[in-house]
Amino acid sequence: MQKISVFGANYREIEIGKIINLGKEKPLLLSNGTTISNFPIAYQTYGELNQDKSNAILICHALTGDQYVASKNPVNEKEGWWKFIVGDGLAIDTKKFFVICSNVIGGCMGSFGPKEINQDTGTIYGGSFPVININDIVNAQNLLIENFGIKKLYAVVGGSTGGMQALTWSILYPQKINKIIALACSYRHSPQNIAFHEVGRQAILTDPNFCQGNYLSEKTFPSRGLAVARMTAHITYLSESSLQRKFGRNLQNNNHQKIVSIDSKHSPEFEVENYLHYQGLNFIERFDPNSYIAITKAVDYFDLEKDFNNNLSLAFANSSHIDFCIISFSDDWLFPVFEAKKLTMSILACNARVSFITINSCNGHDSFLIKNEPTSLAIANFLN
Amino acid sequence: MQKISVFGANYREIEIGKIINLGKEKPLLLSNGTTISNFPIAYQTYGELNQDKSNAILICHALTGDQYVASKNPVNEKEGWWKFIVGDGLAIDTKKFFVICSNVIGGCMGSFGPKEINQDTGTIYGGSFPVININDIVNAQNLLIENFGIKKLYAVVGGSTGGMQALTWSILYPQKINKIIALACSYRHSPQNIAFHEVGRQAILTDPNFCQGNYLSEKTFPSRGLAVARMTAHITYLSESSLQRKFGRNLQNNNHQKIVSIDSKHSPEFEVENYLHYQGLNFIERFDPNSYIAITKAVDYFDLEKDFNNNLSLAFANSSHIDFCIISFSDDWLFPVFEAKKLTMSILACNARVSFITINSCNGHDSFLIKNEPTSLAIANFLN
Repeated sequence: MQKISVFGANYREIEIGKIINLGKEKPLLLSNGTTISNFPIAYQTYGELNQDKSNAILICHALTGDQYVASKNPVNEKEGWWKFIVGDGLAIDTKKFFVICSNVIGGCMGSFGPKEINQDTGTIYGGSFPVININDIVNAQNLLIENFGIKKLYAVVGGSTGGMQALTWSILYPQKINKIIALACSYRHSPQNIAFHEVGRQAILTDPNFCQGNYLSEKTFPSRGLAVARMTAHITYLSESSLQRKFGRNLQNNNHQKIVSIDSKHSPEFEVENYLHYQGLNFIERFDPNSYIAITKAVDYFDLEKDFNNNLSLAFANSSHIDFCIISFSDDWLFPVFEAKKLTMSILACNARVSFITINSCNGHDSFLIKNEPTSLAIANFLN
Repeated sequence: MQKISVFGANYREIEIGKIINLGKEKPLLLSNGTTISNFPIAYQTYGELNQDKSNAILICHALTGDQYVASKNPVNEKEGWWKFIVGDGLAIDTKKFFVICSNVIGGCMGSFGPKEINQDTGTIYGGSFPVININDIVNAQNLLIENFGIKKLYAVVGGSTGGMQALTWSILYPQKINKIIALACSYRHSPQNIAFHEVGRQAILTDPNFCQGNYLSEKTFPSRGLAVARMTAHITYLSESSLQRKFGRNLQNNNHQKIVSIDSKHSPEFEVENYLHYQGLNFIERFDPNSYIAITKAVDYFDLEKDFNNNLSLAFANSSHIDFCIISFSDDWLFPVFEAKKLTMSILACNARVSFITINSCNGHDSFLIKNEPTSLAIANFLN
């Protein structure tokens, strides 16, 4: 067990589980031209790798997710974020499969990221952390897979930003993959999504404690800006109808009187406001603002259509042997069903096999993170 | 011509047009229990009031709008925001009608608002400005109408927050109204809309220059927080498809290469980001952060359904003699068509006459502010 430092409202050191240093023999060339060598990747595994190393499934986590797919997260002590999907006898059955999930580079759960020490300078990367994209994230994952001696993954699975990574695996390393499952994602990040990310980033930059990204060296932390960024993003993770169902226009403490206090202007009055504040406060306990900037940028750059000369099906020209499963959710407005359909049609145009499923949902984009029978069934059936 | 102070990035004094002090004989009781007397209302008029004062139309402006409906705004020197609707021979014909538009209380264009001097203390209201709601805004407008000696308005017209004011007129002063036109609005502010407002408010509060709302006394200004608030809101004013059409995923300066600069993390790269930055910067030149907090709160409190015991049709029980025209826009996701339909059905249930129109649009919520033939025709036909 190695330890990592967790910053945020409360500084502490946490036992983080498995960390391996990669890129020792051959450094990793990032898309911005930087090379990194001997960099850490933190990961978790579940189940056993079989003799011929043919039963490995790589799970790619979402934007602010982590490697704790099916075990307790040591930072916030919450249960694994996909514990209803990954486990003994579950859709991704750990009796049968060896499941790997690593923290993305740029992240803040032990992998190479902005809060780590730059070994060239001996100081924290902070604002000098290199620009990364989804390809970089996948290339780092590939080094981890190579380190396990795995020649071919049984499957790569991911939702949202994890889905973008899964799709990118099929493009960068098609020969290493049998199956891809991409949930609640798209072939590109839309202008509206970029806009929401930019608002979040600007909220962080506006916080005077941001200090050009060098807040850790300055022994401070832009908590409020990061909380506002999370609040903005969280609205997009839910649907209008789920907000209506969960909170409606209820006031906190069932206080349905007219508000008369002047102070009330500055504290949450409606339950929905209180919920957002809660999400913001939770987030600053576990996430790094520079990581948030780095990863949201990586996601904004994701555009398979542009990368392949505005012909999306060219992206999958070498993937015709792969089985794809594209799962979308009916009330996801961050990655709407019509984008998943376009993705599906483009894969089909390359003669790959695609299962396309739209699941009726009432929890918006977050539906893929919420236990539901259709998602479990779709994943289980597709893998078996 | 009176002058008002405009704060923001550049302090300056501006000739503001007409300002009248109201509530001299009888103070106005606000819904939070405060009374205000001898308070300013800034307004513009277009056309001539006829002999029997029967041709007056009150236009209610939207959230961050102002009284410059059809004449040049002296602060940003832009043309009137509805100059294609209000004017000689236009849908609201100033040859025929006397058009009045006043800056809402809580605003920052000359009416009673947070940047004005509290005459009781001799200091700027700032953070001590009272909580207001839409009823208060309408009650102040009513004093202005009384001051003109107008017994009955030919019509009250408004879009978005202006539509909420128009509906409120039909409830508070039904006997003073012939016709109501409410565009791009709803009978309440939805939980999702409250959530977006709250994110904007928190962005302002996070700015260290906010100083508990007393930034003007402290000779500073929370520009960055206000800009982030505006950026957030602006996303909701457009539709996903309009962002796609206007900007797509284009990079600025037609630079379609991969981004490699580290600095690029902190400056807008995509056109859509640049557009939002531009909107944010424009806004801080003309708007007051405390006004933004006060008015967004007033809008969040708006809920005719709750006010009338969860029976929306009771809201219009005394309005059966009024002609209503409810105009919604097909791709407005801030005030979606289904809410306008529910509003319409509730008015119908009171035996009032309602024209309901959904206009096919491609500019989202902002469609009511953009010149288009169907909107002009609907308004003109309904008024005549």
